[in-house]
Amino acid sequence: MSRFWSAVVHGLTPYVPGEQPKIADLIKLNTNENPYPPSPKAMAAMAAAVNEALRLYPDPNADALKGAIAGFHGLKAAQVFVGNGSDEVLAFVFQGLLKHERPILFPDITYSFYPVYCGLYGVAFTKVPLDPAFRIRVADYAQPNGGVILPNPNAPTGCLLPLADIETLLRANAGSVVVVDEAYIDFGGESAAALVDRYPNLLVVQTLSKSRSLAGMRVGYALGHPELIEGLERIKNSFNSYPLDRVAQAGATAAMEDREYFDRTRGAVIASRERLAAQLATLGFEVLPSAANFVFARHPGHDAAQLAAALRERKIIVRHFKSARIEQFLRITIGTDEQCGALVTALRDILKG
Amino acid sequence: MSRFWSAVVHGLTPYVPGEQPKIADLIKLNTNENPYPPSPKAMAAMAAAVNEALRLYPDPNADALKGAIAGFHGLKAAQVFVGNGSDEVLAFVFQGLLKHERPILFPDITYSFYPVYCGLYGVAFTKVPLDPAFRIRVADYAQPNGGVILPNPNAPTGCLLPLADIETLLRANAGSVVVVDEAYIDFGGESAAALVDRYPNLLVVQTLSKSRSLAGMRVGYALGHPELIEGLERIKNSFNSYPLDRVAQAGATAAMEDREYFDRTRGAVIASRERLAAQLATLGFEVLPSAANFVFARHPGHDAAQLAAALRERKIIVRHFKSARIEQFLRITIGTDEQCGALVTALRDILKG
Repeated sequence: MSRFWSAVVHGLTPYVPGEQPKIADLIKLNTNENPYPPSPKAMAAMAAAVNEALRLYPDPNADALKGAIAGFHGLKAAQVFVGNGSDEVLAFVFQGLLKHERPILFPDITYSFYPVYCGLYGVAFTKVPLDPAFRIRVADYAQPNGGVILPNPNAPTGCLLPLADIETLLRANAGSVVVVDEAYIDFGGESAAALVDRYPNLLVVQTLSKSRSLAGMRVGYALGHPELIEGLERIKNSFNSYPLDRVAQAGATAAMEDREYFDRTRGAVIASRERLAAQLATLGFEVLPSAANFVFARHPGHDAAQLAAALRERKIIVRHFKSARIEQFLRITIGTDEQCGALVTALRDILKG
Repeated sequence: MSRFWSAVVHGLTPYVPGEQPKIADLIKLNTNENPYPPSPKAMAAMAAAVNEALRLYPDPNADALKGAIAGFHGLKAAQVFVGNGSDEVLAFVFQGLLKHERPILFPDITYSFYPVYCGLYGVAFTKVPLDPAFRIRVADYAQPNGGVILPNPNAPTGCLLPLADIETLLRANAGSVVVVDEAYIDFGGESAAALVDRYPNLLVVQTLSKSRSLAGMRVGYALGHPELIEGLERIKNSFNSYPLDRVAQAGATAAMEDREYFDRTRGAVIASRERLAAQLATLGFEVLPSAANFVFARHPGHDAAQLAAALRERKIIVRHFKSARIEQFLRITIGTDEQCGALVTALRDILKG
């Protein structure tokens, strides 16, 4: 506490990201990183970008990157906004598109950064409970609101909403911005990017941190009607003209263009997830159906916090949330098959003991 | 305009950065970039950071970089905040430390991003006029305020305030945060970092974009009492956990540690500036005394906008601001001696014509 702080600082409860441990030899299955390295083409583009031109500012509009993203999704560059990770994009969305008189709506169990953004920008919100099977029911969002935001698939459950449900949501909320946060969509869902041309109230947010293995470079984007994009550009240009450095722009552009590597690695993650889910079920876990690069699972006979601690002793870290309704779940990132195998072996050992 | 925009978006007048042209063969003296490349050690560190670990998130706290910055300034890591360029750092400062009941104070001629931040966060401000010689008079800041911010040296004038004046300002405003924005301090001034241990209301902001030739990588920082730093960390952790990517952290850390290269290149820029200022004077320009990597100059017989346009025809770009009191000035970044020579030749030619 300090008398020099603005009033908003006193009331903040900052987001707590998953641990980024500095210990070697850990099997790190706690922050949903991709087990595979970035595309070799992205690596080559970043290596080439480390040159004397780094003395110069980057392109403030990231035109090449916007072009590559637009090309990937079959959209126009004016329908694309880019930022320093999807977290920065989401921050601008809360400030620029979701702050209205009425409270916004999001699930009671969801990405825990949403209420933090609300605190930062003074956005009122109402949490809409997931159903008993931890699914989003779109009918529950047919109520007056200042906007709707939900991850699809949801985090940390991994549960997917079909595109038809997203369309229902868009039609029922034609007067509000509906933000579909698709950080994990490439691991099993169909992107609402296909709906952008038809719904002026739709904003789709994606990231290169997960399916493009670029968590270390901080690149996210939003897709939507040019008017929504213009609102985000106005915020960005009142905040930081150059949020993406030269190396990040180069790597992200090449990663978006390398479809073959993208399809191959996300396919491998999906296959590993299905194997891991089956093995966890064999060990007695209840595993929610996942369309993400993680599974969300609980064991009827074992406390989740104790399981997480026992795994940590074996140098495997997973994520455990001390939150209502989900305190008996573990969120386990899909690693390589070798890492998943080590996890299963460790769990088998722990459950026996 | 869109009904989906939050109220704040409608009222924004975004910052307009200097042009980043995509034309080759230009002599680019318009955005105060360093004419010399980044430190070879920084280049090597960035090249080494382009590796498979980019699939993993960066250190959210940038501990190594904070350590290097603290080491450079003889401070503790708890007195250091880092961000995605000093523009992001400044945004957090306006939101987290400068928003109070009373208006903040800054010069009438200064970094034009300041009123933009005020618009974004609803911070009231009062502009304090520079004196007729375009200097800051610290006595003018002895009035009730919610905070004070000023660049030192000032932008776009380049004029330096001695450290004794900064101390006077700090003592006269003990109840307010005083932010000294030192983007250009390494080209001729004495940093207020030396005062951080003694004044809990002082925040010093610096950047690696200018004197460390890393504009392309977006790294800035703030130095201050741990309570001020904590306020900024709370904002940052409510906005984006990982604002600095792995390559930027690696390059910035190495750049801070390479004092020899830093001293050599800033020395070269200072020497070029002195030569250029003398040559411009010979051509009849009035050149304000500069402690920055640019000069601010006007010619009594020639219109500044016309001079800028004529230079542009000769593939040399400088910055011209259409703002009250300074519309007859050009802001000219210090390039290599060769670039400065080409500028002088072009100006001599234009003035003759």
